[in-house]
Amino acid sequence: MSVTAAKGFTAAGIAAGIKENGNPDLALVVNTGPRLAAAGVFTSNRVKAAPVLWSEQVVKGGLVSAVVLNSGGANACTGPQGFQDTHATAEKVAETLDLNAGEVAVASTGLIGVTLPMDKLLPGVESAAGELSAHGGEKAAIAIKTTDSVHKTAVVTREGWTVGGMAKGAGMLAPGLATMLVVLTTDADVEADVLDRALRDATKVTFDRVDSDGCMSTNDTVLLLASGAARVTPEYAEFAEAVRAVCDDLARQLIGDAEGASKDIRIEVVNAASEDDAVEVGRSIARNNLLKCAIHGEDPNWGRVLSAIGTTKAAFEPDQLNVAINGVWVCKNGSVGEDRDLVDMRYREVRITADLAAGTAEPVVIWANDLTADYVHENSAYSS
Amino acid sequence: MSVTAAKGFTAAGIAAGIKENGNPDLALVVNTGPRLAAAGVFTSNRVKAAPVLWSEQVVKGGLVSAVVLNSGGANACTGPQGFQDTHATAEKVAETLDLNAGEVAVASTGLIGVTLPMDKLLPGVESAAGELSAHGGEKAAIAIKTTDSVHKTAVVTREGWTVGGMAKGAGMLAPGLATMLVVLTTDADVEADVLDRALRDATKVTFDRVDSDGCMSTNDTVLLLASGAARVTPEYAEFAEAVRAVCDDLARQLIGDAEGASKDIRIEVVNAASEDDAVEVGRSIARNNLLKCAIHGEDPNWGRVLSAIGTTKAAFEPDQLNVAINGVWVCKNGSVGEDRDLVDMRYREVRITADLAAGTAEPVVIWANDLTADYVHENSAYSS
Repeated sequence: MSVTAAKGFTAAGIAAGIKENGNPDLALVVNTGPRLAAAGVFTSNRVKAAPVLWSEQVVKGGLVSAVVLNSGGANACTGPQGFQDTHATAEKVAETLDLNAGEVAVASTGLIGVTLPMDKLLPGVESAAGELSAHGGEKAAIAIKTTDSVHKTAVVTREGWTVGGMAKGAGMLAPGLATMLVVLTTDADVEADVLDRALRDATKVTFDRVDSDGCMSTNDTVLLLASGAARVTPEYAEFAEAVRAVCDDLARQLIGDAEGASKDIRIEVVNAASEDDAVEVGRSIARNNLLKCAIHGEDPNWGRVLSAIGTTKAAFEPDQLNVAINGVWVCKNGSVGEDRDLVDMRYREVRITADLAAGTAEPVVIWANDLTADYVHENSAYSS
Repeated sequence: MSVTAAKGFTAAGIAAGIKENGNPDLALVVNTGPRLAAAGVFTSNRVKAAPVLWSEQVVKGGLVSAVVLNSGGANACTGPQGFQDTHATAEKVAETLDLNAGEVAVASTGLIGVTLPMDKLLPGVESAAGELSAHGGEKAAIAIKTTDSVHKTAVVTREGWTVGGMAKGAGMLAPGLATMLVVLTTDADVEADVLDRALRDATKVTFDRVDSDGCMSTNDTVLLLASGAARVTPEYAEFAEAVRAVCDDLARQLIGDAEGASKDIRIEVVNAASEDDAVEVGRSIARNNLLKCAIHGEDPNWGRVLSAIGTTKAAFEPDQLNVAINGVWVCKNGSVGEDRDLVDMRYREVRITADLAAGTAEPVVIWANDLTADYVHENSAYSS
């Protein structure tokens, strides 16, 4: 059901010819109201794609009527021409649907440094507009795929209102954000500033805590649109929980479909002195190539976990660290613990628990993937 | 010639049986004076192996009579037993050679979290002592290999004095330091505080600027010993230059032999606002897994270079960045530059130049490797 699960939205996904293989590559999501509230979170990479620069400005107004997304080209590092192309795309959507271009968000994904084929994209906008439907969410989700093996959608329904969404992203998932395009919609009657708060609270503990390969994209965009069509205004906590649940579901789907991965690694950091410490340690473990290789080889190499923890500034004493892999405490007090042969690593999900023994912060979970020869192959040949 | 190129040193390398395959695994380097000055630089990982904790204390005194090094086990994360084993090793060397144990440095390399077979190591010390020779440098260099495909030595000779050295390290090379054991010797008559300064000046621009896989070891140790046997005290600048030349030579050998690598990547950052900015940018590029895969695939994917630069705090404007790959400026002003098809990437060395257009800092060079399926294979199976 994706972005059309909530009332007040139509969507479409078509093949505009941006991708040379003829796969769907253009999606349109339209908020039919009555409310047109929106919020967005964007990549923290300082090299931002043209559509990110554009959409950041659009979202500042708190009002988004439509989102146009393309796969097949990131429109990043494309100079003034790239920004003009993004602007022209928004104008085309506005003209076709009789909207204000300043309320049309644009998102792009694909190879960096290549300008978009506007002769295909602009007619594609017209085709997509002709296909808009209250059942178009699935097709929209399919049209934003790049190296994704499956399209990703999620929905939660509460009493009388719904939050739904779609995501794409299969590589370069990293905090701040993952490489992803995400559009979330809700028919709850919620103002833009509340959407903004709920979205930031949610992304901080979901998309910002998946780290597939430590790389940060130029194009990450997460948008949350509210139509108000359900004519219900939930309590903040209830609404925030629903947004978070959808983000969490999509984030897990992203990790589960990461390029070339054979393992999903759930890293839980417990007994840190602070949440920041726990996140820093979790990310350091998540990014350790040697550990990621060991997990791929089903080797419970806890020494590499300690080595990763040791590079952080978090509060801990080396001789008080404990590490469990799939429930077996293979490292106790910074040294050899339970027999590593007890660790069963045959399954896709691998759980690492790092106990810093340094405080009482709430546990933090970071999701990562293993490092595989398939990852190398996929990313050696991506642009050729 | 290695550590015995300089006068006043003897060395040996033997197979003590620490490695199960019977390869050489124990090295001894002895300073026969007349001076016994020394300095050391150690890993900045907060999880330090027992021999690092020991040798840091030894070196503080500025006096090292002998260094005993073993491969086949890192003696890291081995708790109080590990420290006792290091201490016992130093005591054994002292007893055998009639030295003070407080002047015996110890270095270990191999798998983390496994205690050393002291029943083999201690008799090995006696055997090695019996083999000590002014021609033993080569054998010592061979005995410290782990996954190294070749042993690494370097020598520079100046007017009447020499600096030589040996290194091991083939993976987990990363700033602060690379995963390496290095012993440098000189017969110049130099005091400990001068050795310390020259060693820090040298490692900062050599070993600290190689980054094979972004991982930082628990065992890195670089020692510089002076015997004074040449009875020459060079000017500081001249001495520092010689130490730096040997470190640079060894650092390049380490990158050239990195686990599974098929490319050596020379990353030069120019026109940064400061040296710190240049180093931060160079390391960010060096650690970008997506770029490392692209280089492996001989794909001049400059978008991934920009994406890596964008994650740093360095001063730059995205639309002023320029990137050359093997001399072709494929990115100009943050956008498409010269034709990427002009880039010839068939050779092992790949040169990336990142022009930040932000200042007048001296260029900084960071060396890295590509990411390959062979790297994954070697590091998936390392401990099994």
